[in-house]
Amino acid sequence: MKALVFHGPEQTSWQDVPDPDIKDAADAVVRVDAVTICGTDLHIIKGDVPEVTPGRILGHEAVGEVMEAGADVRTVRPGDRVLVSCISACGRCRFCRENRYGQCRGGGGWVLGHLIDGTQAEYVRVPFADLSLHPLPHTVDSKDAVLLADIFPTAYEVGVLNGKVQPGDTVVVVGAGPIGLATIATARFFSPGRIIAVDLAESRLAAARAIGADAVAHAEEGPELLVEDLTDGLGADVVVEAVGAPETFQMCTRMVRPGGRVANVGVHGKPAALHLEHLWIKDVTITTGLVDTYSTPLLLQMMAAGRLPSSSLVTHHFELGRMEEAYDVFSRAAGTGAIKVVLGSPQHDALSVPEGP
Amino acid sequence: MKALVFHGPEQTSWQDVPDPDIKDAADAVVRVDAVTICGTDLHIIKGDVPEVTPGRILGHEAVGEVMEAGADVRTVRPGDRVLVSCISACGRCRFCRENRYGQCRGGGGWVLGHLIDGTQAEYVRVPFADLSLHPLPHTVDSKDAVLLADIFPTAYEVGVLNGKVQPGDTVVVVGAGPIGLATIATARFFSPGRIIAVDLAESRLAAARAIGADAVAHAEEGPELLVEDLTDGLGADVVVEAVGAPETFQMCTRMVRPGGRVANVGVHGKPAALHLEHLWIKDVTITTGLVDTYSTPLLLQMMAAGRLPSSSLVTHHFELGRMEEAYDVFSRAAGTGAIKVVLGSPQHDALSVPEGP
Amino acid sequence: MKALVFHGPEQTSWQDVPDPDIKDAADAVVRVDAVTICGTDLHIIKGDVPEVTPGRILGHEAVGEVMEAGADVRTVRPGDRVLVSCISACGRCRFCRENRYGQCRGGGGWVLGHLIDGTQAEYVRVPFADLSLHPLPHTVDSKDAVLLADIFPTAYEVGVLNGKVQPGDTVVVVGAGPIGLATIATARFFSPGRIIAVDLAESRLAAARAIGADAVAHAEEGPELLVEDLTDGLGADVVVEAVGAPETFQMCTRMVRPGGRVANVGVHGKPAALHLEHLWIKDVTITTGLVDTYSTPLLLQMMAAGRLPSSSLVTHHFELGRMEEAYDVFSRAAGTGAIKVVLGSPQHDALSVPEGP
Amino acid sequence: MKALVFHGPEQTSWQDVPDPDIKDAADAVVRVDAVTICGTDLHIIKGDVPEVTPGRILGHEAVGEVMEAGADVRTVRPGDRVLVSCISACGRCRFCRENRYGQCRGGGGWVLGHLIDGTQAEYVRVPFADLSLHPLPHTVDSKDAVLLADIFPTAYEVGVLNGKVQPGDTVVVVGAGPIGLATIATARFFSPGRIIAVDLAESRLAAARAIGADAVAHAEEGPELLVEDLTDGLGADVVVEAVGAPETFQMCTRMVRPGGRVANVGVHGKPAALHLEHLWIKDVTITTGLVDTYSTPLLLQMMAAGRLPSSSLVTHHFELGRMEEAYDVFSRAAGTGAIKVVLGSPQHDALSVPEGP
Repeated sequence: MKALVFHGPEQTSWQDVPDPDIKDAADAVVRVDAVTICGTDLHIIKGDVPEVTPGRILGHEAVGEVMEAGADVRTVRPGDRVLVSCISACGRCRFCRENRYGQCRGGGGWVLGHLIDGTQAEYVRVPFADLSLHPLPHTVDSKDAVLLADIFPTAYEVGVLNGKVQPGDTVVVVGAGPIGLATIATARFFSPGRIIAVDLAESRLAAARAIGADAVAHAEEGPELLVEDLTDGLGADVVVEAVGAPETFQMCTRMVRPGGRVANVGVHGKPAALHLEHLWIKDVTITTGLVDTYSTPLLLQMMAAGRLPSSSLVTHHFELGRMEEAYDVFSRAAGTGAIKVVLGSPQHDALSVPEGP
Repeated sequence: MKALVFHGPEQTSWQDVPDPDIKDAADAVVRVDAVTICGTDLHIIKGDVPEVTPGRILGHEAVGEVMEAGADVRTVRPGDRVLVSCISACGRCRFCRENRYGQCRGGGGWVLGHLIDGTQAEYVRVPFADLSLHPLPHTVDSKDAVLLADIFPTAYEVGVLNGKVQPGDTVVVVGAGPIGLATIATARFFSPGRIIAVDLAESRLAAARAIGADAVAHAEEGPELLVEDLTDGLGADVVVEAVGAPETFQMCTRMVRPGGRVANVGVHGKPAALHLEHLWIKDVTITTGLVDTYSTPLLLQMMAAGRLPSSSLVTHHFELGRMEEAYDVFSRAAGTGAIKVVLGSPQHDALSVPEGP
Repeated sequence: MKALVFHGPEQTSWQDVPDPDIKDAADAVVRVDAVTICGTDLHIIKGDVPEVTPGRILGHEAVGEVMEAGADVRTVRPGDRVLVSCISACGRCRFCRENRYGQCRGGGGWVLGHLIDGTQAEYVRVPFADLSLHPLPHTVDSKDAVLLADIFPTAYEVGVLNGKVQPGDTVVVVGAGPIGLATIATARFFSPGRIIAVDLAESRLAAARAIGADAVAHAEEGPELLVEDLTDGLGADVVVEAVGAPETFQMCTRMVRPGGRVANVGVHGKPAALHLEHLWIKDVTITTGLVDTYSTPLLLQMMAAGRLPSSSLVTHHFELGRMEEAYDVFSRAAGTGAIKVVLGSPQHDALSVPEGP
Repeated sequence: MKALVFHGPEQTSWQDVPDPDIKDAADAVVRVDAVTICGTDLHIIKGDVPEVTPGRILGHEAVGEVMEAGADVRTVRPGDRVLVSCISACGRCRFCRENRYGQCRGGGGWVLGHLIDGTQAEYVRVPFADLSLHPLPHTVDSKDAVLLADIFPTAYEVGVLNGKVQPGDTVVVVGAGPIGLATIATARFFSPGRIIAVDLAESRLAAARAIGADAVAHAEEGPELLVEDLTDGLGADVVVEAVGAPETFQMCTRMVRPGGRVANVGVHGKPAALHLEHLWIKDVTITTGLVDTYSTPLLLQMMAAGRLPSSSLVTHHFELGRMEEAYDVFSRAAGTGAIKVVLGSPQHDALSVPEGP
């Protein structure tokens, strides 16, 4: 089959590789019908994630059809259209039993496209298939559903739920990339009083407005003053960091009100300064987290009900074979305006098909 | 009356001042029968707390007898023996309605010995007396009860409850001064699996053991390795920072397990480095806070039932008039072994007296 | 002034009575500009609430202007337009400190039109004015705001929050009277998957649809089967009882899924059968409650933002002097289609007026 | 092998039956070294549980050694000493993913000795072995550990955690049988202010005192008055029903304070009257539940640390072959004073043995 193989920093190729096989009775092999590229993949290619070794197939988000299932797989079978979650779960370890699948100690967690071969390929082997695949209803389009593999559960669990968004809250989302936009969309489930998006790119601020932000602020044009003005000087109830930089994290801790929450979703490569000389007295809660995907069934239900604005997040579509071109467009987001790019298999149309009579 | 007056950095004196009066219908005037000195008072004297201006009477912890009560005071009356809480509460503002009395916007919060005259005096005016004083049962000794004014509720609310200590948890308390020791004592309410105390002073580690720590570690002798060993490499469920220094805070964030909580209680004067490059993926919750004293009625009940080991925290007793000597002993804790010093009025013995017929 | 006075079962009159005065320094006297009638008032008139003694002025919901405030009142002053909450709160007792104002032991709780004279009058004395009145912004109409005195906080706190409505939930509301409709409106803050309303009256089912129910069922036409069908036989996540009868309560306990919640809001006069022989194994949570009105500031914010559909709940308007006619219409709801009736003072138009320059 | 077989109401025999085999790759076969009898077994024998059909081997609590494990079992292997939980869990269904193993829809839940053959036998087949067996440390005795199969997690999850016992609470436990006693023991993890036990049998009240009750009341000697006296007329914070009768449930709802919790643990065969005419206004939470056993790892840790008083619950020991005699003693508890009876295999001594070099 064809797959995107990492050969070391700045070296990848869409090339022939052997087809994956069932290795463990809990595995399934899935034909990839829709797949996307994550900002994390760009970090891997830069060499920022040393656990990813040369020869690894990248990608941790997909929708496809089960081709083969191991003897121990009970909840999906060949022919099922499924979502491949970015997180695999053994279901047996201490953390899985607490629904912290992202911290799985039994061979799961974030392994696809990281510690084992991933989804940017024609086929992928998925471990612990029962807890790592989600059958899709016919009413959900594969090109939409692929956003449930990572960005929607990440935004909802690590941003909205960790941040404990409540009715009436002022919520600031710093960073209006895919995760930030998905945070805005899912924060709305709890009827916040207002959502304020902060970013450097006008196009992303426009996207934030379109997906439901009530106010937007350019990051260099006094977002802190805006928050102060809108909250009578008190600060925001919830601030979500969706960038992954020290400066934005520190901005978040300045924007939060006494008693408020800062939920970090961004992937950081450096330490930030935590101004405890101001914060110690301020009753602030700061959370970090990797997605666990325990919310995927709920988010799938919301998508099926038309309550997740997925289409506005996908700016570009490609055929699966044009993987390298898709990477190029996604990596130059500032120029191309890319938010999410989705690749699909042309012969297995990713659209849902109503069942016949 | 006599009182300890702050005259500017490193200048205080126990001197004559006018007696306090009722200024507002919600005030009470309390005769001070037991009072203590807080580490924060030492910071004020160094000049670290610029809101405290020359002429201010210090102190925010006391037990005494109500001498006079304003027309609007409904729950205490002259003759009542009461605890003077370190936090006053207007009871009307948004934060008071949420029990965040420490963040009161209506004239309360931490004001005693800070923004208004405090308790290191023969008499003190207490604003919002109904919500800031707690009548004491006869079974509780004043010299014990004075520890309920600040350190016990601070340790319990900001350390134990913010840290969400649960049965079976491994709890690390970094800093075995008065607050750290009170954290150990109150963490035990939730039956943690083990409590590990970390400090630089052997005398404090001994005090930690005496009050209930299951293990202790000298801060320079590998406390992180000890925690790692005791938790199979996973880290602690809850880590409480009770020092107030960047190094100890950073140590706390290294000691916590994935999914664990770091509760900051220490008063910080400088920023700390938050190593988000390690923590972003680790599902960690970090909390800060000023005490609200909403737990004071519960802690008083526990003390009355003999379930708070208060006596082991008080190392020195003085007569009220020997305030300057008490400050000297308390400020040289490393040499004197002082944990808490309590000053009492000799003519109004601070011991409880059973009511006569 | 004029007021509606209870003279014993089935005997009331709109008659002259003395104007109320300030009796306690925490009191305020409010001129009533908008008032409504509650189902509970009908119970009182029937003689079902023996605590209400002859001579009592009825009513516990109003909007008006503060005429006079006691010396101890700090947060409102004469001239302020305010909401009179159905619950008064001393702010000092154990329950008030836990935000359970409805259980106040210090002279508050539900007292207006119950233990002291109420709001169905030209003027009303309100005890503990600071915690029992809410200043209204100019953007909120008095005729809408009066619904915040009781039905919206009751529905939200005792129905929606006690029921822990979550995104995606199936919520059944049994009883589509004013409280049931307000439950439907406020349940939507949490983005439930579907809301099913059950009632006997077609007009109320139509109102339920209009205010946001996704499905409705006539109480005699198999509502339990509908819930079963819509939930794959599992039952509803949350069921709210908003009638107050044994039969409807029992229906609620049959409709709830394993692990679900039944929130009782109805006022009951008789015991119900609790079928523990089925329920003991079913992981069900049942809650009861009197409103505390801690959510009133939030609900007021939501109303000001246009996010509470108040107007659809008010079916009839009257001048204040036509109180007896309003009672007649409200008490014959089945025939008149009345949901809420609002009475307003003609000379003090209850509409908001923008402030002049 | 030998096993206790149910042949219909009042008919059981300890007889020869075929040895169990692995039927599914997730199964394990366990040799039973310690087993006990549950009150539910007596109900089955009376014919109260029609799902139990003639030919069924009874019993759902055991400790033993894994003899054989299916291909899909990953966390235990032959030779491991394990606890057999009363609840099996598929780990894949909606309820298992929420830790509601007791409600498992994938073939688990309470099945042992109910829908499939149970543990009152020399060997037992356990389905879903990974999530249904718990390896035991050497420091825990099998005769103690067997109490972790059902009564301790039931008491802790359904009584203490559902009841939300908090420090300082007044907790009433109605029924001082095995579950009630285990509730008293585990409620102490949260440092309640006082625990009051209610029962009809003096011997059980004595056992309640021994295990940690602060006060006891004979059920016919005014337990409600005692609770009223001890709580200044307010009622208890938490009341746990551990009997399973309408009268005791109703007593619980009378004993609870406004804002308090009633946690039902008892197995009921009849409806109770729920006096909503009193309770609707009282802010009460009532919970029911079947154990899920998610707390078993914690309880095992507490037992290993010597913090669960298991030995005081076991009044009688028998060899496994004397099953019928053990049933006789247990079923006549009033006369024999039996609380829990434990049966053990003589040749596989149920005591823990330190590992050799």
